[in-house]
Amino acid sequence: MSGSLIIAGLGPGAAELITPEVTAALNEATDLIGYAPYVARVTEREGLTRHGSDNREELDRAGHALRLAAAGKRVVVVSSGDPGVFAMAAAVFEAVDAGDSSWRELDIKVLPGISAMFAAAARIGAPLGHDFCAINLSDNLKPWELVERRLRLAAQAGFVIALYNPLSKARPWQLGRALDLLREELPGHVPVIFASAISDAREAIDTVPLAEAVAERADMRTLVMIGSTQTRLIERVNAKPFVYTPRSVGVSS
Amino acid sequence: MSGSLIIAGLGPGAAELITPEVTAALNEATDLIGYAPYVARVTEREGLTRHGSDNREELDRAGHALRLAAAGKRVVVVSSGDPGVFAMAAAVFEAVDAGDSSWRELDIKVLPGISAMFAAAARIGAPLGHDFCAINLSDNLKPWELVERRLRLAAQAGFVIALYNPLSKARPWQLGRALDLLREELPGHVPVIFASAISDAREAIDTVPLAEAVAERADMRTLVMIGSTQTRLIERVNAKPFVYTPRSVGVSS
Repeated sequence: MSGSLIIAGLGPGAAELITPEVTAALNEATDLIGYAPYVARVTEREGLTRHGSDNREELDRAGHALRLAAAGKRVVVVSSGDPGVFAMAAAVFEAVDAGDSSWRELDIKVLPGISAMFAAAARIGAPLGHDFCAINLSDNLKPWELVERRLRLAAQAGFVIALYNPLSKARPWQLGRALDLLREELPGHVPVIFASAISDAREAIDTVPLAEAVAERADMRTLVMIGSTQTRLIERVNAKPFVYTPRSVGVSS
Repeated sequence: MSGSLIIAGLGPGAAELITPEVTAALNEATDLIGYAPYVARVTEREGLTRHGSDNREELDRAGHALRLAAAGKRVVVVSSGDPGVFAMAAAVFEAVDAGDSSWRELDIKVLPGISAMFAAAARIGAPLGHDFCAINLSDNLKPWELVERRLRLAAQAGFVIALYNPLSKARPWQLGRALDLLREELPGHVPVIFASAISDAREAIDTVPLAEAVAERADMRTLVMIGSTQTRLIERVNAKPFVYTPRSVGVSS
């Protein structure tokens, strides 16, 4: 049994953001597993079987990948962005933890990728230039009360806050509620960045003050970043402003 | 004047973790600027002037880069990891904000890289699999009281905590104090990961319970990750345990 399982990050979309390490793993794979739109980003070739699946089937997908690896296949599970950030790596290790004890001895590796928040931050300046946090706004796998608690504590800590999975058809009100709650904790001038489909043809990125931020600007593919009180805009004549958070914080902050 | 300024992330160390986008920018550059050990990671070639500088000279380095770009050079400022995470991107935008107004109209781009925390997380499993934060433990540019406040709030929020710049010769006691403080907020079984020099020949990564974590395990090149109460170990027969944080959180957490 010489199978292996790699969980690889494809980055936000563009081919030039995929690391050579991930490209090499994709070229060696016998089986490719993941959410169908991510699997479709990898070119077909002889010797590669592509198994696309629906969203929200992470544990089934992880089990499938582990069984194929245990049977001797070279399996690559693909995630968008970084596989360790609200993506397939945790799902695979949950399946290993709960599954057959022989799975623990498989050759399992995670290959990092460019996460959505760093790709989005890079596009607009350096909004994550100081301490920051990342919160999955979905309440599919945790109680909404915990999301609210984390948002309040993060704002009180002065973190820049990156919100993943801000809304979906099944979760239409959560982002609006989160923005209202953050307006209770932070001044209205704090910049909020809405970043969608970074590095692909539909890329869109905009900054508005928290006082004017509305959930309708976001969709399933949007990453939302809430600045801290320190986050600043640099206005430009013929381009959108740069947004950055300075490295220094004064004693009064 | 057709100069440009790119702030590029070289990732944690290995060449196979540098994105093709960054490699292309390095190949087009006329001038390379950064902390000397990072500049040294880029091969010399004809037509490329390499300007290495000491650590803790970020603003001087940023001003130098902007002046060269304004003079028509194709300048690349290199950072380790991701340039937007406690690295050169924020320093460059601080210099733009405070500097000559013509600098705002320069062609300035940030190219993301694989950050230390995602490279370290990938090496050991998926410790950042749920909500997390990143805190720069250096009190060179912010008051230590603010670092303590953020650590407490982050622990209370249940974030996994990535600590950048945990200590240096000039800051010998801060990590020990941070670990003591976290022991007041979190149970002693919480896993703490010490990750050094990920992806290069001196790579070392280890996990200990918070109760036994001591600052002496870290040096300037170490990233420290503090798990949440949910973070789990998967023991293996012939290898170090995997560490991961499940995607689900129960109501009681």
